[in-house]
Amino acid sequence: MVQTWEDKVAPVRSKRDASLAKVEPPLAALPASFPLNSQSVPKELLTAREIEITEGYTVKQLLAKLRSRDISVEEVTRAFLRRAAVAQASVNCLTELMWDQALERAKYLDSLPEPKGAFFGLPISTKEHHGMKGDNIVTNASYVAWIEQKHGSNHLYDILWDAGCVFYVRTTQPQTIMHLETNNNIYGRTLNPYNRNLTCGGSSGGESALIGMRGSILGVGGDIGGSIRCPSAHCGIYGFKPSCKRLPNAGASLHMAGKETILSTLGPMTVDREALELFVETALAAKPWLLDPSLNLREWAPHKFDRPLKIGVQWWDGVVKPHPPMIRAMREVAAACKAAGMEIVDWDCEKLKHDYAWDLTASLYWPDGGAEVMGLLKDAGEPILPLTKFIIEEQPAVKHMTVTELFARTNERDLYRRFYAQAWTETGAQDGHEIDVILCPPSFGAATPHDQSRYWGYTAHWNLLDYPGAVFPVTVVDPSKDPKDESYTPKNEKDKFCYDMYTPEKYKDAPVSLQVIGRRNNDEKVLAALKEIEKAMGRP
Amino acid sequence: MVQTWEDKVAPVRSKRDASLAKVEPPLAALPASFPLNSQSVPKELLTAREIEITEGYTVKQLLAKLRSRDISVEEVTRAFLRRAAVAQASVNCLTELMWDQALERAKYLDSLPEPKGAFFGLPISTKEHHGMKGDNIVTNASYVAWIEQKHGSNHLYDILWDAGCVFYVRTTQPQTIMHLETNNNIYGRTLNPYNRNLTCGGSSGGESALIGMRGSILGVGGDIGGSIRCPSAHCGIYGFKPSCKRLPNAGASLHMAGKETILSTLGPMTVDREALELFVETALAAKPWLLDPSLNLREWAPHKFDRPLKIGVQWWDGVVKPHPPMIRAMREVAAACKAAGMEIVDWDCEKLKHDYAWDLTASLYWPDGGAEVMGLLKDAGEPILPLTKFIIEEQPAVKHMTVTELFARTNERDLYRRFYAQAWTETGAQDGHEIDVILCPPSFGAATPHDQSRYWGYTAHWNLLDYPGAVFPVTVVDPSKDPKDESYTPKNEKDKFCYDMYTPEKYKDAPVSLQVIGRRNNDEKVLAALKEIEKAMGRP
Repeated sequence: MVQTWEDKVAPVRSKRDASLAKVEPPLAALPASFPLNSQSVPKELLTAREIEITEGYTVKQLLAKLRSRDISVEEVTRAFLRRAAVAQASVNCLTELMWDQALERAKYLDSLPEPKGAFFGLPISTKEHHGMKGDNIVTNASYVAWIEQKHGSNHLYDILWDAGCVFYVRTTQPQTIMHLETNNNIYGRTLNPYNRNLTCGGSSGGESALIGMRGSILGVGGDIGGSIRCPSAHCGIYGFKPSCKRLPNAGASLHMAGKETILSTLGPMTVDREALELFVETALAAKPWLLDPSLNLREWAPHKFDRPLKIGVQWWDGVVKPHPPMIRAMREVAAACKAAGMEIVDWDCEKLKHDYAWDLTASLYWPDGGAEVMGLLKDAGEPILPLTKFIIEEQPAVKHMTVTELFARTNERDLYRRFYAQAWTETGAQDGHEIDVILCPPSFGAATPHDQSRYWGYTAHWNLLDYPGAVFPVTVVDPSKDPKDESYTPKNEKDKFCYDMYTPEKYKDAPVSLQVIGRRNNDEKVLAALKEIEKAMGRP
Repeated sequence: MVQTWEDKVAPVRSKRDASLAKVEPPLAALPASFPLNSQSVPKELLTAREIEITEGYTVKQLLAKLRSRDISVEEVTRAFLRRAAVAQASVNCLTELMWDQALERAKYLDSLPEPKGAFFGLPISTKEHHGMKGDNIVTNASYVAWIEQKHGSNHLYDILWDAGCVFYVRTTQPQTIMHLETNNNIYGRTLNPYNRNLTCGGSSGGESALIGMRGSILGVGGDIGGSIRCPSAHCGIYGFKPSCKRLPNAGASLHMAGKETILSTLGPMTVDREALELFVETALAAKPWLLDPSLNLREWAPHKFDRPLKIGVQWWDGVVKPHPPMIRAMREVAAACKAAGMEIVDWDCEKLKHDYAWDLTASLYWPDGGAEVMGLLKDAGEPILPLTKFIIEEQPAVKHMTVTELFARTNERDLYRRFYAQAWTETGAQDGHEIDVILCPPSFGAATPHDQSRYWGYTAHWNLLDYPGAVFPVTVVDPSKDPKDESYTPKNEKDKFCYDMYTPEKYKDAPVSLQVIGRRNNDEKVLAALKEIEKAMGRP
């Protein structure tokens, strides 16, 4: 009998379910039907102590308690394991609960005479396709064709492990790992923890949904088009995409290994700003460039501003107008920055050809026209999901290139990068001070309804340029403040698609986040600017 | 009538000759036949003052005299213009003498109330295909097809210009800019200034020949397979290939723009060690990453050793045994380093698969199988030179790849880079101190007889790895010390080819140089190590 793709998927789902069934004590009966907003669910299923551990502390505070042995690694790990199981039940964000491995690791760490490592005892959640060392670690990267593939070492994860963390869950990503949502044929769809009708974002959407449920307070995502920033923004958490070649990403399971046109990078997703920097600092302290010489040789050197920030505000990208809540968030934050003494100038994209840049980006994602990926899907017989079609087949710029065409396209990329750098430099032409960062939306709006994430411009643009970017939560959609602008006339088809999508009611409770962008390799400056901006917003 | 390639070339040669004819006062009658070694020629044709200016000072000393206005820029420029004309007559290293432009620039600099810029008044020689800003600047990059192409700005050259230098000559490179010699159909063959029967090396062989004649004391080369280091070594001068993406190279005329598999970098070629660092320091002080965001954001930070060097000595690369003078040079320098208290260990390449690495390198040079380049040559009807055939058609690994094959090959490159980094790390396994640098030959021997540079392993290996490398002169071939080793049995075809090439008599007066290699992005360390090694050799 021929095995169908469903036949292959069934045991993988069973394995996931079996891993969840290990939870002890088992979760009380789940709600018969889940509320639209899942934020209330954990309190119904977890103990007060578990709630305290999982949402009572920032990452640094919890680390301090672990290091001082105020609390055992095992107790923390059990609390996050159980809360992750609640998150799974609520928003379907896990591929595996690593119950036994996590507790074994926790007990080992508790047995050490001295705590050691920057992440001593901290449960860290991980994106499935990144894999990690371990006898029983298999990775499918959401491809039915790759089900049960053995996984080797992941360089960054080795560093986190050496820094004393506990790996305890693996999280979902979409088919091809190239949607700004999270849905695949193996594990199904992951939902937004604030509104099940909306996406959690993608591709690191298992992470964002889990962290949005505080089933984790620190996880690892990857970003080649927005895959850290989009889901972080949609779930109201913090995410940071460093410049490429700062953090190691050797060891993840991914199609088109060896493609250099647009690179991906790993990065942190977390519940507070400070943890972003701690993560990158810890990774770089291990001198990863000695093992992976493709990485930049640069220690982490925190940036200090010697004058108030000069911020370029990108109100829109010249292609798609952001939805009203996003515009409101921009206004509120820009006003707060101005009130705090910062200089606010417009970052005018209308001359910066973001639409051309998107075509360039799309074609550089798929220099083989998507042949390898579509082949993987077709050979396995699995259904090709709508957002897979969107990002490959529906992009007019995508074609199977010859190497000569590839070089020409790559050269266009380099010229565009120089063109954009020139525009940045010109912001200092008059007063000798160029802008420090750009403040911009991380998407045209809050999380979209499912299968509607069809405009990547607000994140992918910075991947084309390899500019670092951090997202941070600002507000939530508020129908009373964010009515639809009925007077607006869309400028083009993409703009119309996004404009038509908005009515405030659809977006009930949806987080609205913003993005801080720096010049390439100005990672430290981006995080320092985020700190200043949040200070201006009255945050600690 | 159809224009032949010779018809196209004739006016370009005439233009070069006309530029040389501007020399004032004209050179005295040239020797009827040039001696084998051209080193004696300048003294016969130049004034004592010109000799003093062009060979009496290091780069820094001459800069000091220019800055203090002990000597005018015009006088220095005239001396180097005339000496460059002598070099051209002797070894055929120029494509153009920029008489009028150089003197105009010199007079302008002399007219300034204050000298300014790190290179104030210094004549700097330039490789033709790099081009530079200027109304009358055309570039052919040695392609008949590109004769008289207009040239735009070259980013690095703009920086040198802003630092106050004088551009006064442009120098030859080989067909395709991919030979380790210098010969092309437009300008003919460039010769070694120490022995006309030998090559000056390539591809920056116009520079090395010119500097070897002291027709320049600082010039700019480019390196993707040895093109700075090989010619510098063959002509007894200093050359430095930084890690890629440290110095800008935007603006050079080159085939296959956009290819990323193996990158080229510009770098200095000069008469003394100190000038190497001054060059890179000056270039980076201009923050070139602001204009070209593909560059690393790293200031130049001179390296200081806090303990004696640990040097890995690569006696051979496991493929081709170096000639006796090279082995002697290695022994002498290693012994001097040891005597100075440094730790000398063997860098054993036999397990490091340099031969495999070469195949990888060759295929990554020509992912289109050489189609673009061979097309350029064939369309222009110009003869395809033997070393062009060698590097494209005679490399079994070269093939026209699909993008999928290209990614696979690029992935192999990345794995090999990690493999090699691991071997480097292991040198510290026992004592906690890995080697600081590798000391190795820059070629299997001194400069080869013409058209015999058919083994790139000693330089191109470090391009594959993107490791920085500096070459420095050590000795000259001495038949009494360097007899052929008649007892040696070559290990393979390549080894036999190189072994058979050697008899001491052929190499009369040929300089022998060595190479210092560092880990990727350890540029500062390489130059600091070179200083320590030369100190051990008793040099200032």
